[in-house]
Amino acid sequence: MSMGAPLVALLTDFGTRDWYAAVLKAVVLCRCPGARFIDITHEVPPQDTVAGAFILAAAVPWFPRGTVFLAVVDPGVGSRRGIVAAKADHRYVVGPDNGLLTLTLQRAKRFTAVRLTNPRYWRTPVSATFQARDIMAPVAAFLASGGALTRLGAVLSHLRPLALPSVRQAGSTLRGQVVHIDAFGNLVTNLPASSLTAPRGSRGVAVRYKRRAVRVVSSYAAGGPSELVAVAGSLGLVELALRNGSAAWTFNAARGDEVEVRQA
Amino acid sequence: MSMGAPLVALLTDFGTRDWYAAVLKAVVLCRCPGARFIDITHEVPPQDTVAGAFILAAAVPWFPRGTVFLAVVDPGVGSRRGIVAAKADHRYVVGPDNGLLTLTLQRAKRFTAVRLTNPRYWRTPVSATFQARDIMAPVAAFLASGGALTRLGAVLSHLRPLALPSVRQAGSTLRGQVVHIDAFGNLVTNLPASSLTAPRGSRGVAVRYKRRAVRVVSSYAAGGPSELVAVAGSLGLVELALRNGSAAWTFNAARGDEVEVRQA
Amino acid sequence: MSMGAPLVALLTDFGTRDWYAAVLKAVVLCRCPGARFIDITHEVPPQDTVAGAFILAAAVPWFPRGTVFLAVVDPGVGSRRGIVAAKADHRYVVGPDNGLLTLTLQRAKRFTAVRLTNPRYWRTPVSATFQARDIMAPVAAFLASGGALTRLGAVLSHLRPLALPSVRQAGSTLRGQVVHIDAFGNLVTNLPASSLTAPRGSRGVAVRYKRRAVRVVSSYAAGGPSELVAVAGSLGLVELALRNGSAAWTFNAARGDEVEVRQA
Repeated sequence: MSMGAPLVALLTDFGTRDWYAAVLKAVVLCRCPGARFIDITHEVPPQDTVAGAFILAAAVPWFPRGTVFLAVVDPGVGSRRGIVAAKADHRYVVGPDNGLLTLTLQRAKRFTAVRLTNPRYWRTPVSATFQARDIMAPVAAFLASGGALTRLGAVLSHLRPLALPSVRQAGSTLRGQVVHIDAFGNLVTNLPASSLTAPRGSRGVAVRYKRRAVRVVSSYAAGGPSELVAVAGSLGLVELALRNGSAAWTFNAARGDEVEVRQA
Repeated sequence: MSMGAPLVALLTDFGTRDWYAAVLKAVVLCRCPGARFIDITHEVPPQDTVAGAFILAAAVPWFPRGTVFLAVVDPGVGSRRGIVAAKADHRYVVGPDNGLLTLTLQRAKRFTAVRLTNPRYWRTPVSATFQARDIMAPVAAFLASGGALTRLGAVLSHLRPLALPSVRQAGSTLRGQVVHIDAFGNLVTNLPASSLTAPRGSRGVAVRYKRRAVRVVSSYAAGGPSELVAVAGSLGLVELALRNGSAAWTFNAARGDEVEVRQA
Repeated sequence: MSMGAPLVALLTDFGTRDWYAAVLKAVVLCRCPGARFIDITHEVPPQDTVAGAFILAAAVPWFPRGTVFLAVVDPGVGSRRGIVAAKADHRYVVGPDNGLLTLTLQRAKRFTAVRLTNPRYWRTPVSATFQARDIMAPVAAFLASGGALTRLGAVLSHLRPLALPSVRQAGSTLRGQVVHIDAFGNLVTNLPASSLTAPRGSRGVAVRYKRRAVRVVSSYAAGGPSELVAVAGSLGLVELALRNGSAAWTFNAARGDEVEVRQA
């Protein structure tokens, strides 16, 4: 646990028009009265586990030790998919076993995951339609209060993978794709930032997007007024951006668009 | 009061683009420095007291004892409608007397409401346009600090009712309507969840929406790929839903649409 | 410092779909574990420093002493614009030196500003694309923890001004403009509320907007059903409003629209 009151960070696709996210917090507070909350986002596109996994994995490493993450993007609510809790690098995550947590756990140095099977730590009765409130929030409260992970259920040897696109390599060319479009309209790709560094002796790196050569620069501000540029983004991934504009809008970008990096 | 710092939960139609909701919190903090906040939502459709009342009543019972709810959907700001504070099942609510609080108070086992008339607990001067900041937030801070409800004004014997639709019964048929559309596009009706349970000896229950027979299932996930189903929702009300999709979108649903439950 | 845990209030144009705002908080928490957060808004229109400055200046005076404001609307991120921290009337502000903080500081009775040059209080390495996380958030945490402003860099004698429209006066006529449209569709102008008070001996005040005479009333509710009215708003500025409706929508209003007040 970090100093101060327990910290619970939430990521859901519930939106903020409705009471759902607030009720998760209320349930946590009933069992862990000192809890504090940070909303990562409640605007994951509905049921989009890939987007949720990406945002969660990007956010988690910045939080203090002891933070409990409650992540709910759960198309299978009420079905037989499992629910998991895990300890990863001194932080905790709770969510459905549908790939949502996988990126986060893969990036951790070490983790232990359990399948939630012990109803002692749940609300009763458990509704079919809102297991986040009835199972996940009480378990998050239990962990935030210092409870032991292994009391929640049996250790899992295997989590369901996330169906993320992979980067393809052909000779000196990497082909990735836009995996996320951020609030500024920047295009986040699955290409590693290191791919923008030209190897010794090479003539440089060529980036292409939509048949367009994209200049590699060191910061967004180094771009020309309406020039699409490629930067090593803060996530360790290649991002395409327009200075003072939305690359997504200007180039009609969509998740899945191909982005190519070639070492010339 | 519950353990821990005082808890103030907010529901407004202020949106989150502007500073209004933050200023309510700032005013509370100036008078109750230890307050913690939970946002239920600030996206009640502007001036829609019915939607606000519905969301508030759904959220309140989940919160710890001692929580103070500050609810502001107030088309009559600056007019002569009253402002009330109430204690209901060990929680407090503050808001305009325009029906917004009525559902919440009706669902409570017992409540006491007062009309806010004692300016000692308000900011001065009171503006005509922002009484939430100048009257309601200071009063919420007073209650969150442990102040006594009855110092705020005279006890009210009667609150203004909310103009909610009622369920009509004709023989074995109940006719209700969609009263709320949630973030997933599920249709929340005013029909009680218990109406989905077939009485002993009957042949079952038939649900109809837009001339369509709707199958009754036990969880969202039990529906077919594009099948509209009826479930007993987590609010104790009948909900219509599409597994992995938006019922609202697919069926072009709107608040007020008729939904029928017949015991065959 | 106020009583209770340190308070950090945030205003950004990051939106709430992404993890950016949450990561600012996470970075603050790693260095100031007891910090509490209030979101003013994360929906400043992207890169719109004027809108951001307006919202920030309106919100700041309501907060308790000791509050630290972290304000990020920063089209020049990664360029050579400076970053500043300031103490103003017992509160602190941290943000880019691009005019965003200027209105707030001008309204303060006194302030001291420094340019952030001492990397000892930053994260390392500092990324080119996310200086809010790497410089501003750590500095906000330092101030929230009680650190001394003057350790952060040299005192600035001059901040970059904000390119705000000014009110023009011609005889007894003031010509201002819509500078902000709030969540209810009310039109906030840059005309002082005092201009609505007719001087002794005058015949009154005439307000015009889009060739339309606008009646001056004391509260929104005093307007007719679809009558545009002018009120002295809670910011000390003239606002144009429709009772129970959106003036912005009905009159197709936009920031920059001219509004005239004449003392007849």
